[in-house]
Amino acid sequence: MDAINSGDTAWVLASSALVMLMTPGLAFFYGGMVRRKNILGVLMQCMIILCILSIQWVLFGYSLAFGKGNSFIGGLEWAGLAGVGAEPNADYAATIPHQAFMIFQAMFAIITPALIIGAFVERMKFSAFIIFTILWATLVYDPLCHMVWAVGGFIRNMGALDFAGGTVVHINAGVAALAAAIVLGKRTGYDNKPTPLHNLPFTVLGGALLWFGWFGFNAGSALAANGLATSAFVVTNTAAAAAGLSWALVEWWFSGKPTMFGTITGAVAGLVAITPASGFVSVIPAIIIGASVSVVCYLGVSFLKPKFGYDDSLDAFGVHGIGGAWGAIMTGLFASKAVNSAGADGLFFGNPALFIIQLKAVLISAVYSFVLSFVIFKVIDLVMGIRVSQEDEVVGLDLSQHHERAYTILE
Amino acid sequence: MDAINSGDTAWVLASSALVMLMTPGLAFFYGGMVRRKNILGVLMQCMIILCILSIQWVLFGYSLAFGKGNSFIGGLEWAGLAGVGAEPNADYAATIPHQAFMIFQAMFAIITPALIIGAFVERMKFSAFIIFTILWATLVYDPLCHMVWAVGGFIRNMGALDFAGGTVVHINAGVAALAAAIVLGKRTGYDNKPTPLHNLPFTVLGGALLWFGWFGFNAGSALAANGLATSAFVVTNTAAAAAGLSWALVEWWFSGKPTMFGTITGAVAGLVAITPASGFVSVIPAIIIGASVSVVCYLGVSFLKPKFGYDDSLDAFGVHGIGGAWGAIMTGLFASKAVNSAGADGLFFGNPALFIIQLKAVLISAVYSFVLSFVIFKVIDLVMGIRVSQEDEVVGLDLSQHHERAYTILE
Amino acid sequence: MDAINSGDTAWVLASSALVMLMTPGLAFFYGGMVRRKNILGVLMQCMIILCILSIQWVLFGYSLAFGKGNSFIGGLEWAGLAGVGAEPNADYAATIPHQAFMIFQAMFAIITPALIIGAFVERMKFSAFIIFTILWATLVYDPLCHMVWAVGGFIRNMGALDFAGGTVVHINAGVAALAAAIVLGKRTGYDNKPTPLHNLPFTVLGGALLWFGWFGFNAGSALAANGLATSAFVVTNTAAAAAGLSWALVEWWFSGKPTMFGTITGAVAGLVAITPASGFVSVIPAIIIGASVSVVCYLGVSFLKPKFGYDDSLDAFGVHGIGGAWGAIMTGLFASKAVNSAGADGLFFGNPALFIIQLKAVLISAVYSFVLSFVIFKVIDLVMGIRVSQEDEVVGLDLSQHHERAYTILE
Repeated sequence: MDAINSGDTAWVLASSALVMLMTPGLAFFYGGMVRRKNILGVLMQCMIILCILSIQWVLFGYSLAFGKGNSFIGGLEWAGLAGVGAEPNADYAATIPHQAFMIFQAMFAIITPALIIGAFVERMKFSAFIIFTILWATLVYDPLCHMVWAVGGFIRNMGALDFAGGTVVHINAGVAALAAAIVLGKRTGYDNKPTPLHNLPFTVLGGALLWFGWFGFNAGSALAANGLATSAFVVTNTAAAAAGLSWALVEWWFSGKPTMFGTITGAVAGLVAITPASGFVSVIPAIIIGASVSVVCYLGVSFLKPKFGYDDSLDAFGVHGIGGAWGAIMTGLFASKAVNSAGADGLFFGNPALFIIQLKAVLISAVYSFVLSFVIFKVIDLVMGIRVSQEDEVVGLDLSQHHERAYTILE
Repeated sequence: MDAINSGDTAWVLASSALVMLMTPGLAFFYGGMVRRKNILGVLMQCMIILCILSIQWVLFGYSLAFGKGNSFIGGLEWAGLAGVGAEPNADYAATIPHQAFMIFQAMFAIITPALIIGAFVERMKFSAFIIFTILWATLVYDPLCHMVWAVGGFIRNMGALDFAGGTVVHINAGVAALAAAIVLGKRTGYDNKPTPLHNLPFTVLGGALLWFGWFGFNAGSALAANGLATSAFVVTNTAAAAAGLSWALVEWWFSGKPTMFGTITGAVAGLVAITPASGFVSVIPAIIIGASVSVVCYLGVSFLKPKFGYDDSLDAFGVHGIGGAWGAIMTGLFASKAVNSAGADGLFFGNPALFIIQLKAVLISAVYSFVLSFVIFKVIDLVMGIRVSQEDEVVGLDLSQHHERAYTILE
Repeated sequence: MDAINSGDTAWVLASSALVMLMTPGLAFFYGGMVRRKNILGVLMQCMIILCILSIQWVLFGYSLAFGKGNSFIGGLEWAGLAGVGAEPNADYAATIPHQAFMIFQAMFAIITPALIIGAFVERMKFSAFIIFTILWATLVYDPLCHMVWAVGGFIRNMGALDFAGGTVVHINAGVAALAAAIVLGKRTGYDNKPTPLHNLPFTVLGGALLWFGWFGFNAGSALAANGLATSAFVVTNTAAAAAGLSWALVEWWFSGKPTMFGTITGAVAGLVAITPASGFVSVIPAIIIGASVSVVCYLGVSFLKPKFGYDDSLDAFGVHGIGGAWGAIMTGLFASKAVNSAGADGLFFGNPALFIIQLKAVLISAVYSFVLSFVIFKVIDLVMGIRVSQEDEVVGLDLSQHHERAYTILE
């Protein structure tokens, strides 16, 4: 039996709590952006994902993701947490209880499908949403997580680096969001222009909670309270800052004013982009990654949506898909064994092979997620219908799906 | 002198901060539910409790609760924290500074009376509220805490299990809430139907902060960063999730729609119910406890209030009293020495005695709290009047008690 | 090489996250106080400071503050974090990675200028604000931080005690706020009376997050998870509580009602005052410091502003300047080697010398900050204009500086 280190355990438990908070944080980040009649729809989707996937994960999701099995998916030997107890599992984290690793990973499994919500707000049927959540977690997240992070997973075996979820979380969710936007179609009355945010302070609050929680997401992924965790913490903060500032400056340049909405969106894009790189790069690359991802996402969001006319309502694809891919590719450039000897050197440190591997990992993840997600959305649409009626959409999801109103503050 | 373990200390300090945040979290959870003219009343009551009891606890509350003394109450040898310093007190936590145990417990003493607020919102006089807070903490909380958790406490000596406060915190507060609802009477115009929530997103925000803070509440109660803390963390999250989902499904079944309010209420009920059990049960029982408590509380809230006509305005009794009792009883069924060798086996693990003990502990706590709380409320009412005038109630507590308005956002 | 302690590292990383959260917390604390048309202006200023100074700090700010250099300012040997890696730097913290100390300090460098915002809300030009942020951090914060905290700093060498930033953070920001109020002048239509708060619950939320984060600020300043961190945690909570209660009581006495706004303002004043003392005093002095600072600040705010007619809009000087000075002076009275053997005894423990040193440290810090800040504001005003046009001020900063509206909740 490996010995449990109390400092490492304290940090991973604290990080798990921080990552749990990201899902409500995301709920407010997204919830502030929608129209007033749909905020509860967003909050409810986020909170129900937190409920459903907490259960799914301990029942079988964790086992499918990290259990032995084959190169593509784990087995069921850890279903119901059988054999997952206080003893460390040295395959993943030799100094903390196995359950600590499990619950930390649970929070990743929860927030990933929540990110997709941004693409289908204001129009998805709640019952269809529940079925989607269960299917997507089981058929898309768990296998991709296994491929990238589990011992024996085939993308991991390719040598791809993904410290905290560039492929597993962000490309995966972002590409699924694109599939959602295509299958569900545009919101009624959507004319390729942004709809007004109903409560921008909520979006800022949510964004701030995401930044706060992301320290757990990235620095917790070291699975120990050590130099690597510290380095991941530092580059996470740095990239978020660089990206928030960069988005504000780009806006200032292109549209005359830096906005609060742009700044917080940029910060989130920076957090996304640094995620895969956070355990492998130092602080100057973090600035470059952060500053560049905002430009890339800003241009992506500004030109792709109008050009192709899909309604990725809150830019789940634009920020997580594009930002996650950018971060994974940058990892192929800037990764350095000087930061993490268990990692690899990137192109700029003399190893072009990693760059190619990262491109492949991005591509495989994106294709896997897009195809599966598209099929899941289509099947749900055929079987039970995926959109609310137009009448319900006009009334808003809060009343039509939940018989509730968010604010009676106005009466 | 025992040695201080830095990892354990880091976790207990982090947990103390998390539990402190629960009181503002509760303020928003409750504050969103009341009418717009009373939100500051709720926020103020929660924040003033945080202020008053932080002082009371270091001056004499901690000593009354955990000092030597007799089976019912502690002595005053630790008044003003005399003798409570950096050295561990092995009676309670051998690897952290004694003050760390003290401040962690302080946060419990603070949130417990804050829970009661749910029963008397929108109508209690602020001056009476302050007197109540001091009396209740001193005469109800501190002794009950001593009986259940202190070395030599008589309920502890019975062998009752309460890992993080099912009896001390939730039954105690819930039953006091029932006493409050009876003594104060109904709100003007209350006709046994729910009043509209003025800001449901605030309630969700508060509920999310409660969930987040509850990791400190339950997993911090291990007083170390070890396997037991991890297990408590895992079952806490699992039970909250199961209960949130369960409440939504019960609502869907009975009233046609799952609501955001029901889901977050259910999650809180799940957190309540797992509290006493969190250090003694594994993950499948946690799902059962969570899923069942929502059904029990939903039925309790739906039938008891209309039947008996009391105005437990925000269901402090319905969620904390009933949910806490349910959790304490479930602990008698599902506790297992395989989870915690320092605990005991429950009925389902061959030890019916524990079940009986838990029933007794619930009963004793409930009777003690109800009788004392009722007397305190009655005496305050007789001496100084406990309700605001009807005129002040119609105007709202914000203006009548504090000369303030929450929002000028509307002007 | 010193060994990294995982528990200490876990605590300092958690504390860094907590202190980061304080800047968004401050954004909501201040944001709730301004008029509805200016909230985004406040949120944006806070978030942009977080972005800009996260970059400035790793590029050169940290090196200027803590690098070798002379008694007044550090050198550039650590620019771009050169040489600042996983190995501990025993000059500052022997048991955690050097980068952990760096990022913890970064969060202090970020929140300090954000505190100043309270003096110039609702009227400062965003472009001027950005220039100010960079200049002030570099010319005022970094040198003063060096003088007080760096090895070789001349105020440190005087023997002055400042555990977590009474001079460096609070006096510094508070006095700069006074300079800002003088240079910028009054808001249009300001007649020495408080303007109505547009969203007091946001102010309470922000204040609660400040309280929560302050545990990291003060207890994290022990740079280890030990008895000293615990003691700092305890006195921080105690002083905040005493000050919140004290402000409410003072208001009750003077103006007839205790307000939510006063209580949360008092709590923040208590947190400010305990900051320099938090590693040197025990719990009874903490109550005295907390209870007294509210009286001092309440009187300061109530009489100084009308008398001198400056518009320190949200009392950044009144709370942070006065409160910080009060705390630094109280440290000279109540500091005790029994609490921290690395500290010193204060006047009440037989060492009047410390009291004199603390007075000197307050004076030097205040003069340094005022003069430099005044010059910076003046130069910016001369070069580019520091205030928005009167028209833009009437419209509000949200629309005039950012082309955004906070809420469309009302439509």
